[in-house]
Amino acid sequence: MDKYNLLDCTLRDGGYINQWDFKDQAIVDMIRNLIEAGLDFIEVGYLNNQGKLGNSTQFTSIEKIQEYLPQDRKDSVLLAMADVQQFTAADLTEYTGNSIDGIRVVFYKYQIEEAMELAKAVKEKGYKLFMQPMVTIDYSIDEYAELVHKIAELNPYAVSIVDSFGYMLKEDFRKYFKILDNLLEKDAVVGFHSHNNMNLAFITAQDILEYNTSRRIVIDSSLYGMGRGAGNMNTELIANYYNMTLGHKYNIKIILDMISKYIMPIYQQRAWGYSPYLFITALYHCHPNYASYLLEEYNVSVSDFERFIHTIPTEMKTKCRKPYVLEMWERFAAR
Amino acid sequence: MDKYNLLDCTLRDGGYINQWDFKDQAIVDMIRNLIEAGLDFIEVGYLNNQGKLGNSTQFTSIEKIQEYLPQDRKDSVLLAMADVQQFTAADLTEYTGNSIDGIRVVFYKYQIEEAMELAKAVKEKGYKLFMQPMVTIDYSIDEYAELVHKIAELNPYAVSIVDSFGYMLKEDFRKYFKILDNLLEKDAVVGFHSHNNMNLAFITAQDILEYNTSRRIVIDSSLYGMGRGAGNMNTELIANYYNMTLGHKYNIKIILDMISKYIMPIYQQRAWGYSPYLFITALYHCHPNYASYLLEEYNVSVSDFERFIHTIPTEMKTKCRKPYVLEMWERFAAR
Repeated sequence: MDKYNLLDCTLRDGGYINQWDFKDQAIVDMIRNLIEAGLDFIEVGYLNNQGKLGNSTQFTSIEKIQEYLPQDRKDSVLLAMADVQQFTAADLTEYTGNSIDGIRVVFYKYQIEEAMELAKAVKEKGYKLFMQPMVTIDYSIDEYAELVHKIAELNPYAVSIVDSFGYMLKEDFRKYFKILDNLLEKDAVVGFHSHNNMNLAFITAQDILEYNTSRRIVIDSSLYGMGRGAGNMNTELIANYYNMTLGHKYNIKIILDMISKYIMPIYQQRAWGYSPYLFITALYHCHPNYASYLLEEYNVSVSDFERFIHTIPTEMKTKCRKPYVLEMWERFAAR
Repeated sequence: MDKYNLLDCTLRDGGYINQWDFKDQAIVDMIRNLIEAGLDFIEVGYLNNQGKLGNSTQFTSIEKIQEYLPQDRKDSVLLAMADVQQFTAADLTEYTGNSIDGIRVVFYKYQIEEAMELAKAVKEKGYKLFMQPMVTIDYSIDEYAELVHKIAELNPYAVSIVDSFGYMLKEDFRKYFKILDNLLEKDAVVGFHSHNNMNLAFITAQDILEYNTSRRIVIDSSLYGMGRGAGNMNTELIANYYNMTLGHKYNIKIILDMISKYIMPIYQQRAWGYSPYLFITALYHCHPNYASYLLEEYNVSVSDFERFIHTIPTEMKTKCRKPYVLEMWERFAAR
């Protein structure tokens, strides 16, 4: 395994765009092609007790995922994500080597306890354990150190710094990285998951590729940046940047062919990407769905949206449900 | 003047999107608001002998521009661009202090001689001289040093490094910067003009803000990145990045209000921004119009476009006229 690695999360994080409705054939092809293109890690979807039984990357079980995986994975490590609210420890089956290799446990700050329980089960069942504490910047340095201490006891395979709302500066990433670097075992990987609301993802990614560290690093990305709001780091961009600066490793042609065949048809139905509305959500440290939900229902100017966002109470900035957003807007518009 | 400065070029480089058809009132408002927002330099349009007499930022004369400018410019320096093929030295009138303060002379490698002549006239008439050699990366280090020697003799106010096709790495910028830093007078400004075809513009911009140099720097950007292909560096992003990292200087609210009022209506008519097609043009060092012209006429998949771009002869990569592109495509499609 190289020092710097890429993790494609199209089938998982990109799934927010198409409700994870990827066709069975597309799932099989994309996993095979991502392996072929040289992606180091591939996140194939969610584990979800309420998932679907076909044509979806919301998988109901680890055994179900196995049906989509090729025999030969080359050097790629295959992963699924488990949200503490969607998948229970009791449903984890033993690692066999025939399905996924690892599980990414994702959780909010108020879910640490449940996350630790699920994480423990992931380790016990023999999987590589990835810990994904969302909105990392919401943890003070002390809180984060405390969290990492707890996580370190489980001897995780990787821990990610997660910029859920897309306003973390590279200096912020460095700060959290330092804590991870100090507290984790030497062989633990540090991951980076970012969003593009301020177009900062690529800046951070290239900064990470220049860290003066011997620790192994993994950067999340998705094809054409497919993902909520302004989207994720683009796999084609970071893979090509890697090739240009560190030596040829990833097959860009295969990546472009996947975008052509599987991603462009989705993009043409429902585009993602940077917009001034998403910039404003990041500027005021709000969930990007404040923009997405509102613009699904109303035609709101950038200026009005900027004035609206000011009215969101601090404690509601990270909690964003559609009825609340629309209610807030109606109250704002009536003023 | 601060060490780091921003230059908004929406009315000039953004004009490629709407054929420079900005309404008179929009031009007046935008210049006033860009001054109000604290932009250090504002490029208000082109000087063009064949320009229009109203509702356009293709101005026929320096006196014509004066009609759009406010009395109070605060600390902003106002500029127009002159393309050696569109504006002749003979039409330059004396600097009065009532119209623009400086002129950006833009030219291709094969136009150096004409550019030097126009540049000399710009200086003689009393304007700040900005030199903009396009596709800077097309100059070898030796060729570039020779060019800069020539330019230095004119004692220019600023010289820009121009990434016309959007594939220059920050390391490339550093290389050309070093030559400028060595050969220009201490008080000459170095400028950076970039495009987003590989989303590298922002990476370079933040790198520049960390250069270990006492030289003054100016970074070009446009509102919402308005510009050809994947567009320019976004003014709102770089201005906010400056505020976050170097201290508050630019008024983001005014910038967003301009985007809301003047830029969004244009964007809704004809969107710009990153796409895999533009990434491919940059990957193969081609003019982004190979994608734009082709997609105006044909529905071409990303994969087919990637195979097509391979067939462009090296000497034609930077020369891109629409009939040629369509002819090349028809030949490719018939194979």
